[in-house]
Amino acid sequence: MTDVRIAGVGLTKFGSYPERTGRDLFAEAALAAREEAGISRDDYEELHYGNFMGELAEGQGHQAPIMAEAAGVECPATRYEQACASAGVAFRQAVQTIRAGGADVVLAGGMERMNNLDTPNVTQSLAIAADELFEVRAGVTFPGAYALMARAYFDEYGGDNEDLANIAVKNHANAMTNEYAQFHREISVQDALESPVVADPLTLYDACPITDGASAIVLVSGDYADEHGIDAPIAVTGSGQGTDKAALQDREHIARTPAATKAAEQAYADAGISPGDVDVAEVHDCFTIAEVMALESLGFYEPGEGIGAAARGETTRDGDRPINLSGGLKAKGHPVGATGTAQIVEMTKLLRGDHANSDALSDPRVGLTHNAGGTVASAVVHVLEVMN
Amino acid sequence: MTDVRIAGVGLTKFGSYPERTGRDLFAEAALAAREEAGISRDDYEELHYGNFMGELAEGQGHQAPIMAEAAGVECPATRYEQACASAGVAFRQAVQTIRAGGADVVLAGGMERMNNLDTPNVTQSLAIAADELFEVRAGVTFPGAYALMARAYFDEYGGDNEDLANIAVKNHANAMTNEYAQFHREISVQDALESPVVADPLTLYDACPITDGASAIVLVSGDYADEHGIDAPIAVTGSGQGTDKAALQDREHIARTPAATKAAEQAYADAGISPGDVDVAEVHDCFTIAEVMALESLGFYEPGEGIGAAARGETTRDGDRPINLSGGLKAKGHPVGATGTAQIVEMTKLLRGDHANSDALSDPRVGLTHNAGGTVASAVVHVLEVMN
Repeated sequence: MTDVRIAGVGLTKFGSYPERTGRDLFAEAALAAREEAGISRDDYEELHYGNFMGELAEGQGHQAPIMAEAAGVECPATRYEQACASAGVAFRQAVQTIRAGGADVVLAGGMERMNNLDTPNVTQSLAIAADELFEVRAGVTFPGAYALMARAYFDEYGGDNEDLANIAVKNHANAMTNEYAQFHREISVQDALESPVVADPLTLYDACPITDGASAIVLVSGDYADEHGIDAPIAVTGSGQGTDKAALQDREHIARTPAATKAAEQAYADAGISPGDVDVAEVHDCFTIAEVMALESLGFYEPGEGIGAAARGETTRDGDRPINLSGGLKAKGHPVGATGTAQIVEMTKLLRGDHANSDALSDPRVGLTHNAGGTVASAVVHVLEVMN
Repeated sequence: MTDVRIAGVGLTKFGSYPERTGRDLFAEAALAAREEAGISRDDYEELHYGNFMGELAEGQGHQAPIMAEAAGVECPATRYEQACASAGVAFRQAVQTIRAGGADVVLAGGMERMNNLDTPNVTQSLAIAADELFEVRAGVTFPGAYALMARAYFDEYGGDNEDLANIAVKNHANAMTNEYAQFHREISVQDALESPVVADPLTLYDACPITDGASAIVLVSGDYADEHGIDAPIAVTGSGQGTDKAALQDREHIARTPAATKAAEQAYADAGISPGDVDVAEVHDCFTIAEVMALESLGFYEPGEGIGAAARGETTRDGDRPINLSGGLKAKGHPVGATGTAQIVEMTKLLRGDHANSDALSDPRVGLTHNAGGTVASAVVHVLEVMN
């Protein structure tokens, strides 16, 4: 099977850009990735692009041709919509295309604009990722859904708001040095505990912000990289995807995310590794409780053990396996359709050693990214490894 | 490279179902395809699903997990949005996944609900497939955009409304025997010419209807089919995709669709065939003029020669290369996100010899499907061949 390597990565700074168009944001990220790769524009064979709420936020569907033009590539372009995992599945299919021999040079990425909608409208737009018939009509929004998951977790395994606050503190601290992060604001456990309740038991600092931004990655086949002398030191060695029932009510355990477990098992098998081999991970912490469930689903902790990881210092920058050195969705920001590939951009830099937080790692070899859609009805996991 | 075969196909009857949910429609098509394939539900490894306007028509994004549940499969599910080519790109990535060795049994399909919106709202919802900044704000809707293309074609190459009327007459005649078609109504050239103008020069009978419906296909690797004794006599031998500028104003020729030419060239090369080898085709006739441009882009006719093909009887059921024996989008109907795989369902039956219009063909070996998004800013072409 053809091996797949990362030749270039690009991001916009995450933030609030109500005055910029989606195509403008994606152009910035894509051109940064293309510049890093240094590959002729004529060699790009496909674009795989993720976006979640373009129809509602910009009145723009069918974005793939527009984004190909924005990125300056003339090639087949495809748009994926998988809620907050949109760019994750786009990246996965980019990998599959190279493995199938369908292309040697592929651009993958995503973009989301959210801040041009006001808070009620953006909350309602995000809610279309839940089950309209069985959840949204009953009044469920995403803060509410994750609050149900947090409450179920506390009831089944224990843990409390202070455990969650430690995750927020960790991720805000990590974002301080990341120039692409939306927030550069250190917070204390006390700050988090005293912040307003959003949906009990979750408070404001348990939730990620509303973010505009874009991310892009140039993928090449190993053969292409070797033949053209492309500097592509990071390989994508594992890819996995999982799907669960959309509605929480249909699941056996509200406090577990088996879609992520399945995605991880597939990615580990694909890469020929086990959870213990992972040096560093970026996981989908749209809410602090989501980071806890991710750590357990990925096999880093047993169910019930992940809640205390940040408080115990195991997942902080000084811990054995740092989680969300980028700042995570929590503090780096979460432009939903861009997040999946943004995580992979961050991980690529961490493994290459040119990330602002690279000093937290000692010779990392294996990185993992975990991207989720809805209440983890969709999950995508990728394993990245340093070549040689 | 692993070969890819079609093990089962399914459709809903196309029509108006404002009282049915999207998941109900997709379940019907998917279960029909699964029943034909006769493969254990545990063996399904992925679902690739197309939908265009679910956010606007049903308030439902993130449809892939919901559709996996509706189809009765527990496996990773991905949603594609590529305007009217949504199911076409979903099918293409299903093929790539099998070719990559990522799966042996894959469900592909699509669904669209449109009739729960009134005419102004469905027209506005369809318009998000055009360029919002440069076309929609200026008042372009799809009947208007295709009217511009028809006018440009007439100006450059000649042709008139009677030529277009002959295409409508042909496709309505083909739909008469197709139990899945929305329309069973033979029309005359005079009927078409006297129908109300929708957007000059296009009249009501130049336009496809607003349709609800779903389609599904079970794809298997050749190895799986052989090992499990699966009856899968049709192979997918070629796949191609093309992308053009989204906005008509940015194109060199308004009356040509180079995205389809590129998709066709890639699919022909993939299959190792030339346009002359194609016995029968289903093309994307959202408007009659779209069928003309498709015939030329696919290499069946030189530019300017396709307009008279139906009137000359070359593309009718008695012609050398029948086009849209299903009735086409024009008379079979066009549930946009389901159309790409619906065309492949029809072609599979035509090549297997169990289609209502199979008697129009004498030992067909090679079939082609052409699925387009927007004003052919996106195009997907597949080549299907009879095994042995």
